Amino acid sequence: MTGESTGAFAEDTAATRIDERRWAVDVSSRWGVLGGAPNGGYLTALAGRAVADAVPDHPDPATITTHYLAPAEPGPAEVEVDVLATGRRFSRVRATLRQSGRARLEVLAAFTDLAMHDGPDLGTGTPPALPPRQDCIDPGDIGDAPAPPIRERMDQRLPPHAWSWADAQAGADRTRSRTSVTDATDTTGRGAATPGVLPAWVRWTGGEEMTPLGLLVLCDALPPAVFTLGGPVGWVPTVELTVQVRRRPAPGWLRVAFTTRHVTGGLLEEDGEVWDARDRLVAVSRQLALAPRG
Amino acid sequence: MTGESTGAFAEDTAATRIDERRWAVDVSSRWGVLGGAPNGGYLTALAGRAVADAVPDHPDPATITTHYLAPAEPGPAEVEVDVLATGRRFSRVRATLRQSGRARLEVLAAFTDLAMHDGPDLGTGTPPALPPRQDCIDPGDIGDAPAPPIRERMDQRLPPHAWSWADAQAGADRTRSRTSVTDATDTTGRGAATPGVLPAWVRWTGGEEMTPLGLLVLCDALPPAVFTLGGPVGWVPTVELTVQVRRRPAPGWLRVAFTTRHVTGGLLEEDGEVWDARDRLVAVSRQLALAPRG
Repeated sequence: MTGESTGAFAEDTAATRIDERRWAVDVSSRWGVLGGAPNGGYLTALAGRAVADAVPDHPDPATITTHYLAPAEPGPAEVEVDVLATGRRFSRVRATLRQSGRARLEVLAAFTDLAMHDGPDLGTGTPPALPPRQDCIDPGDIGDAPAPPIRERMDQRLPPHAWSWADAQAGADRTRSRTSVTDATDTTGRGAATPGVLPAWVRWTGGEEMTPLGLLVLCDALPPAVFTLGGPVGWVPTVELTVQVRRRPAPGWLRVAFTTRHVTGGLLEEDGEVWDARDRLVAVSRQLALAPRG
Repeated sequence: MTGESTGAFAEDTAATRIDERRWAVDVSSRWGVLGGAPNGGYLTALAGRAVADAVPDHPDPATITTHYLAPAEPGPAEVEVDVLATGRRFSRVRATLRQSGRARLEVLAAFTDLAMHDGPDLGTGTPPALPPRQDCIDPGDIGDAPAPPIRERMDQRLPPHAWSWADAQAGADRTRSRTSVTDATDTTGRGAATPGVLPAWVRWTGGEEMTPLGLLVLCDALPPAVFTLGGPVGWVPTVELTVQVRRRPAPGWLRVAFTTRHVTGGLLEEDGEVWDARDRLVAVSRQLALAPRG
């Protein structure tokens, strides 16, 4: 089953088959980030919808890697899908999203049917430490303008300490901001600032159910975790994004945490975890990005 | 510069250009794992050598993702390389390794020249906690037979506690083994067992210098970290491997740590870090693998 629910995400990732290998999609302007460029996770989900249609027995991304080759723009696009190999568990696929004949992103993935995977949970992971939602901040409430279109699609609640970097971005007092990031404490004992870690509560607006393809957007939609390390604040372009989806999320708010441990030679990784309302891990992600230069 | 040094790794990854898009390589039997199949990181490095030859301005893998489509075997193979896009910093490439006309692995990568990347180090990462090398165990010294060919290529020193899972594998006393993993302590305070984490000292045998392409092998050559979680011990087949290389390693022993945090629905991730003798992070890796079923 593809199991996509209805709502803005389902509508804006619709894919229409053109022929054996090509799908028509429309890059919606509703998923733009600051500056108007479409969110990278949304573009990956667009390619993913075409793939899911190409391999209906395996509609879910078990692991999907995207390389961003050239900026995409709102408007029509075409996704070409190559099925490289199909087994019982996985279909291996390659996909290219093109606009005006030019490749904008290249995808390599293993799709599966998440419903067929079983086995006991094991491991040391726990859901992100976050203050209760009512103690967190809705970016829309603190005049963080101009709000990019994608924020109309997604409810976000960030811990109060997460916004200290915003002072730095405003050029206010970068030294003070650096200190506040590492010194911030939360009297509940949950959600104290950890340098390099940005946790948040997230869900779609409008009550739309979160789906495996929707998780691809979630893994690329928060402020960069590197901002919490106290260095320069600026553009953090994604070079490559890989998302492993483990489960279809339960309904309700999700908790995410993004972590950057190593900024070296102008490069950084950002690792993400997504947990659902039933305290189950539903996805992990990692991206390679260019470090901000201030 | 490609800067490959001489030695078994350099010899066994030689790639000869056939035409504009194809390279001939030979899958050596010297990099076999238990059972004789070639190591997955070695196969990725073979594809990487062809890519490095195809984009000589960008000879180093900044991020390389491999999907294993079908088992490869020792013997001749062909690598087909497609250059998708080239910019100042990165060449985006796709590569397919084939044997007897059948695709065995598919690669999507961004290659770069690591020497051109600069910028301050930032982050919270530290080298893996490991006992001194003389307190660690050479797998060859504990009769861990039959030793696969790849162990002749690589010196490994693992903390004593790391071998508790070997008892379980031998079917000795699985319950005792589970306990010993989590209870093991190291009186030096370094290298105490952490469930889900397998650290080690590693280097090539024969004095060969470690190179960026060699790191791809290192990220797939240790016993699975999931064995330290106390669950079943068995085959852990890699579905997809992504390695980000950050720097050319300094000469000397490297320290690695592999971590599995989340085993869910029969799937797991294994995250790797590689540090060089100058305490610098040189690579991070993540793979999606199937959990062992015992």
